Amino acid sequence: MAAVQALRRGTAPEAVRALVGVRAAEDASLADLRRAERCGARLVVPEDEEWPALPLHPLTLAAYAGGGSERLPDRTTALVPPVALWVRGDAALDATVDRSVAVVGARASTSYGEHVAADLGAQLGERGWTVVSGGAYGIDVAAHRGALAAGAPTVAVLACGVDRAYPAAHSAVFERIVDGGGLLVSEWPPGAAPYRHRFLVRNRIIAGLTRGTVVVEAAARSGAQATARRAAGLGKQVLVVPGPVTSAMSVGCHELLREEDTGARLVTSAAQVVEAVGDLGTDLADPAERPASPRDGLGDFARRVLDACPVRVGVSAERLAAVAGCDPLEAMRVLPALEVAELVQWTGTGWRLAPPPGTRRRAP
Amino acid sequence: MAAVQALRRGTAPEAVRALVGVRAAEDASLADLRRAERCGARLVVPEDEEWPALPLHPLTLAAYAGGGSERLPDRTTALVPPVALWVRGDAALDATVDRSVAVVGARASTSYGEHVAADLGAQLGERGWTVVSGGAYGIDVAAHRGALAAGAPTVAVLACGVDRAYPAAHSAVFERIVDGGGLLVSEWPPGAAPYRHRFLVRNRIIAGLTRGTVVVEAAARSGAQATARRAAGLGKQVLVVPGPVTSAMSVGCHELLREEDTGARLVTSAAQVVEAVGDLGTDLADPAERPASPRDGLGDFARRVLDACPVRVGVSAERLAAVAGCDPLEAMRVLPALEVAELVQWTGTGWRLAPPPGTRRRAP
Repeated sequence: MAAVQALRRGTAPEAVRALVGVRAAEDASLADLRRAERCGARLVVPEDEEWPALPLHPLTLAAYAGGGSERLPDRTTALVPPVALWVRGDAALDATVDRSVAVVGARASTSYGEHVAADLGAQLGERGWTVVSGGAYGIDVAAHRGALAAGAPTVAVLACGVDRAYPAAHSAVFERIVDGGGLLVSEWPPGAAPYRHRFLVRNRIIAGLTRGTVVVEAAARSGAQATARRAAGLGKQVLVVPGPVTSAMSVGCHELLREEDTGARLVTSAAQVVEAVGDLGTDLADPAERPASPRDGLGDFARRVLDACPVRVGVSAERLAAVAGCDPLEAMRVLPALEVAELVQWTGTGWRLAPPPGTRRRAP
Repeated sequence: MAAVQALRRGTAPEAVRALVGVRAAEDASLADLRRAERCGARLVVPEDEEWPALPLHPLTLAAYAGGGSERLPDRTTALVPPVALWVRGDAALDATVDRSVAVVGARASTSYGEHVAADLGAQLGERGWTVVSGGAYGIDVAAHRGALAAGAPTVAVLACGVDRAYPAAHSAVFERIVDGGGLLVSEWPPGAAPYRHRFLVRNRIIAGLTRGTVVVEAAARSGAQATARRAAGLGKQVLVVPGPVTSAMSVGCHELLREEDTGARLVTSAAQVVEAVGDLGTDLADPAERPASPRDGLGDFARRVLDACPVRVGVSAERLAAVAGCDPLEAMRVLPALEVAELVQWTGTGWRLAPPPGTRRRAP
């Protein structure tokens, strides 16, 4: 309010006036609020209880760190906190984004990327995490849809007014987000158009609201990469899903993983995402699934004797010992255990490998 | 020789005798050498000029670091230098592996992995690097074939005698390796069978001979992972090609990239491999290809004015300035430059975006 008044009176700093330009003369506050009321949106300001002060704090810090210079930083890249957020949806903003992760990526995504994004969205939702994204084509909407499919709230941070569906093809998804306990969020008032520079400005809100950003697919030199670097600059986790090195849509992901200054971590599952952004001790991922093998428990001698066993014709323990490079007594000592484990067979004249399970007939 | 004599006389340490077992009584040195002569193989020992002493030095260091304990370490995992290497092929061993990289991976590889391995093999070969692998199904043979296709020497380190083709299906590839200036290398004498434990023992030679190991595809808990960890243990570079997170054959690769102690680096091209293992300054990879855009050179104001331009109906500079948030004079100052760059058009009544190149008709 004070800022608006300063602008109207012409007492705002020269640099601010230069940026705001001719718009200083326009004031649409009342019209904005009326329009918001019609579409069921509300204006959330820092004084409100639901203001997500904690997640946005790094933006405030970044703004102070960048301050003091003569010229105001480029608006499209400056890390400044939003002065207010327009919100559509019943849930409280702060509670919804408390445990949230951004899932972002290419608009021109591949079916691989969309599959992974939808899967991440669903599994993060099932684990009680809110997926925040930009509502765009490709990875963004796949992540939102995944969360919706899991019946979980999801947040779309838009580069236009929360009453506008951009892209128009996603209007049904946006309605489902609002109906499903999720939120549409924007810095711009209802009715605002999705100008290109607004996407860059908007991206810092996606990074700011969440604990970490997962990049699913990104071309070289893409907006998703920029969002990830911005998240890293705010001290948020940058998590990257790799893809085929033959896919142009994963080049940006692999670049992020090769860069050292973003601290980007490779993730392959929602469990690994939650482990990275979750609270220590409560959100640990299981290690990747590993096939169990009856060979696992074997000692060195037993494994070597087993490896020395022929497939068909049985041979003597002495011969096995010679091949395995151990004492015949040692071989005789481990063979009974291998037989009990159904790994070797006594043919009557010698030892051989037992047939694999399935092809085996049990003795009556 | 001294070791063989000590074993025959029974004066070798107890632990060594326990490991060698009944084979202490067998001596096939002369038969081995005769068999080697028949298949055109030679025995290379540390005293030979072509012994790759420098690459193998970390194995010697590791053996000393692990020494002094009562019990000899498990043979299948111990990092000890080879006592000698059986070699088939005309090239000198040390010169061939001086600039070499191991390319290893799953036997049950996917077509993606084979494509990437063949491509790496060919491009490393073209850059003058020798591809070292194990001659196995899947990634190994794809890498060898890629190098052969580029007319470059490649080295297969076998877990059996250099006169045996294992797997038999690769006998033609092995002959092409020998004929193409490459080498077949083994720790075991001609005629030796490919026992399972020999593959694990062999893997340390692959890691030892090369400057770094590239893992192309690896299942969880796989031999390729073990080779990579072994390479890391020897202070060699571990380089990993990522893949789709939906592929079981890339799980091991992604695990390696998530582990912090191997120092594994993600690579997507031969250029990045060479950069990682090559000599500083001479082997730098180009950055990933980025599409150039006429927007690149634009200043902040110009970009915002451009973004404010409508697609069809032209609007005034004042209107553009209002949308872009700058002074109308500022907008008028940048519009001519945007027009020269063919980014905007004057319709006669206002400014709009220029149609993209290709759809554009030039003025006569």
